[in-house]
Amino acid sequence: MLNFAERITRPFSDDYPVRNLTDIDFYKFTMGQFIHKYYPDINVRFSLINREKHIPLAKIINEAELRASLDYVRNLSFRRTDLYYLRGMDVYGQNMFSNEYLSFLQNLKLPEYELSSDGEQYELSFFGKWAEVTMWETIAMAIITELYYRSLMRRLPKIELENMYGLAKDKLYRKLLSIKEHQGIKFADFGQRRRHSFLWQKYAINMASEVLGSQFTGTSNTYMAFGADLIPIGTNAHELPMVITALKMAENSDKSNILSAQYIMLEKWEQMYGKGLRVILPDTYGSKQFFANMDNKTAQRIANDWHGIRHDSGSPIEECGNFISWLKGMNIDAKKAGKLCIFSDGLDVKTDASSINGTDIISLYNKFKDDINVAFGWGTNFTNDFRNCLSIEDEIIPEINLKWKDVFKGFSLVCKVSGVEADGNILPVVKLSNNINKATGPSDEVEKYIDIFGDGGRITQKVTV
Amino acid sequence: MLNFAERITRPFSDDYPVRNLTDIDFYKFTMGQFIHKYYPDINVRFSLINREKHIPLAKIINEAELRASLDYVRNLSFRRTDLYYLRGMDVYGQNMFSNEYLSFLQNLKLPEYELSSDGEQYELSFFGKWAEVTMWETIAMAIITELYYRSLMRRLPKIELENMYGLAKDKLYRKLLSIKEHQGIKFADFGQRRRHSFLWQKYAINMASEVLGSQFTGTSNTYMAFGADLIPIGTNAHELPMVITALKMAENSDKSNILSAQYIMLEKWEQMYGKGLRVILPDTYGSKQFFANMDNKTAQRIANDWHGIRHDSGSPIEECGNFISWLKGMNIDAKKAGKLCIFSDGLDVKTDASSINGTDIISLYNKFKDDINVAFGWGTNFTNDFRNCLSIEDEIIPEINLKWKDVFKGFSLVCKVSGVEADGNILPVVKLSNNINKATGPSDEVEKYIDIFGDGGRITQKVTV
Repeated sequence: MLNFAERITRPFSDDYPVRNLTDIDFYKFTMGQFIHKYYPDINVRFSLINREKHIPLAKIINEAELRASLDYVRNLSFRRTDLYYLRGMDVYGQNMFSNEYLSFLQNLKLPEYELSSDGEQYELSFFGKWAEVTMWETIAMAIITELYYRSLMRRLPKIELENMYGLAKDKLYRKLLSIKEHQGIKFADFGQRRRHSFLWQKYAINMASEVLGSQFTGTSNTYMAFGADLIPIGTNAHELPMVITALKMAENSDKSNILSAQYIMLEKWEQMYGKGLRVILPDTYGSKQFFANMDNKTAQRIANDWHGIRHDSGSPIEECGNFISWLKGMNIDAKKAGKLCIFSDGLDVKTDASSINGTDIISLYNKFKDDINVAFGWGTNFTNDFRNCLSIEDEIIPEINLKWKDVFKGFSLVCKVSGVEADGNILPVVKLSNNINKATGPSDEVEKYIDIFGDGGRITQKVTV
Repeated sequence: MLNFAERITRPFSDDYPVRNLTDIDFYKFTMGQFIHKYYPDINVRFSLINREKHIPLAKIINEAELRASLDYVRNLSFRRTDLYYLRGMDVYGQNMFSNEYLSFLQNLKLPEYELSSDGEQYELSFFGKWAEVTMWETIAMAIITELYYRSLMRRLPKIELENMYGLAKDKLYRKLLSIKEHQGIKFADFGQRRRHSFLWQKYAINMASEVLGSQFTGTSNTYMAFGADLIPIGTNAHELPMVITALKMAENSDKSNILSAQYIMLEKWEQMYGKGLRVILPDTYGSKQFFANMDNKTAQRIANDWHGIRHDSGSPIEECGNFISWLKGMNIDAKKAGKLCIFSDGLDVKTDASSINGTDIISLYNKFKDDINVAFGWGTNFTNDFRNCLSIEDEIIPEINLKWKDVFKGFSLVCKVSGVEADGNILPVVKLSNNINKATGPSDEVEKYIDIFGDGGRITQKVTV
């Protein structure tokens, strides 16, 4: 029974936001092995992007504290026990991680970071071998996010702070009870990167296990999967097609070669992981073009041999509906064939006391449960929902000039691959996404990509988390 | 910084002495797989034997508490994470545990226990499939030992109890500093079964890691190896030749068949584990006969392909010396060939403030370091040395009629295989040992074994722990 108010304001001196290299999204390992095997010599840059410019991160987070937390992680190595765990996992088939990759991890130290500040915002980026730099993504985000909350929480009156944790616990509990009413809903925790704190994520995971049992299917946090005896969850993400496509662009490949890079990546993925991790993330350059540009053979293979898609941008209802229709066009009944749609974009659950902050899990479940298998990767609103937990929400925080309710609104921060080295030059890397607000890359480069991939089906949506 | 005095007298309601099925000596897994493969249908009985009859265990340990602790373990299963760890270990070669054995563990529940009491002593035993019953050995001992100390510690005045932990910490620290003065000494913790408590073993392990670094080579406690990122240590023990030989006796095999059972077991062990775990424990029926009764081919194989011996009874100096001489007779220079003697019988380290309770690690090291590689498996005096830590040592404990110093003298408790089922009958199982006081089995049966194996080299020694 942890005293959260005490620990967030007066953390122990060794309470670093990230304390173990497995405190990271599991997909960093599955993608990491892929990168290490197929792109061992590619250098990339990852950059932290705060989409909420009105939140002055550099005013809130102390730079020395940030450096100490980043440095701490750079001194970590994988423990023998961590590597035994990864080698011994059999949930996606045995020996999914090769000895080559495990040796790489054994010797890994996270590469250097570059940190500067204009007084309002930090610029934080990482450059080096792709397989190494990629590990920073969710670690850097978890560090920034926790230091942000620690700094803010220290400014709250004690009584507000204590009460806040009580209300947040109650809110989480009610959300879980609502899910429990629908025994068919299964969700996994995807909230490591934007968690309120390490300890709070652990708390949320334990509560979900206790309340939901097998309806709670696991966590993307490898460390916590390990500790709480849950299944580590994750497959692949946008960075793979982004870098691979950028490299094709650098070669001045013709349009068809560039378009096909996204499918060739999936073919290599199949070779590496067999049937274990076949979930498509179709939206890197828009889901519409993804399904439209495939040749027949690829379409057949994907329709038959892959479990389904993960939805990460665009209207969940339309995108999932489109996938079901596409399968139908391939003569596959999604539900009968056991196909899957994993929703992972800004999810939440409504409670009596609180409005929803994103897309409602229960509505999506009811909408699609008869048409396709659904699952949920629930992130920020699972590990970091503190809206409406203060009585002083409308008060302005001194120096920062934001109301308390603004700092809890959701914190849209990403750490994405932003450049790739080819022939000694750093080329920009682009994501188009189904959601125009989630696109990344310089605007002239984005235009070039749109010329190739088209713009069909892309919409403008608010990014909540 | 744990308050040991508080936690031992007022443990949390879920502070069971054993809380996880991997809180067990690692050799239970290496032997367990062997048993599961080669003797899947053999039923055995394991019995707890308190060699110190003047210590009235049944008066000290509350029966309900004992049953609750045993029942708690019976409700445990191996966690997914535990099995990943075992599957992923590569320190003794990869995939040392087969999927067959891991599946067996996955489904394992510890078999029933039989507990009765005459008011002074408990009779505790376990009957069932050998591969299942064997798991009880170190678990049952750790439970009994911790409940014994909890009960006694509750009777101490607070000031004595607090002071006791301070002095015991200091004593352990001084022992470790003495070892540190001899950089060549390497030891592993073998103290799970007779530990003062779960928490105290954890404390001792952490202290040894901190003080000694790589001189502290690991622990036999699988759970703590896992948690503290140490190497789990263990190979095989007496129960294997004991049961296998008893089965030969039951078949009325001729003498040469009975004598050779101990070597056939080693051959099967080689087949199962390759080069990983080749340490001989020669003293089941006396080390002298072990080396004398081998045929030439076996002797050559063992001298060349096995790392060395573990010493567990008889004079450590004579037994190790005999091994070196035996190797010399086989034209092997023990030191040059990198052969090993692991001492594991009642070890201790002298400190200024306290006399030694057993055989001195440092003297053994100095005696043999130039002639053979030595290593130490340090048990009870590492995880449970509280001698001379009370000012009231000479006071008598009410009801029990023992002085305080008597209860800390060392606690010679074993849990050993005592019978094996053959053709529906339970046959006694015998160990002769180099130390007549360590022999187990009914005396008429012991005589039968002596007729076969001889009595050469056996001596009478005090059993300290």
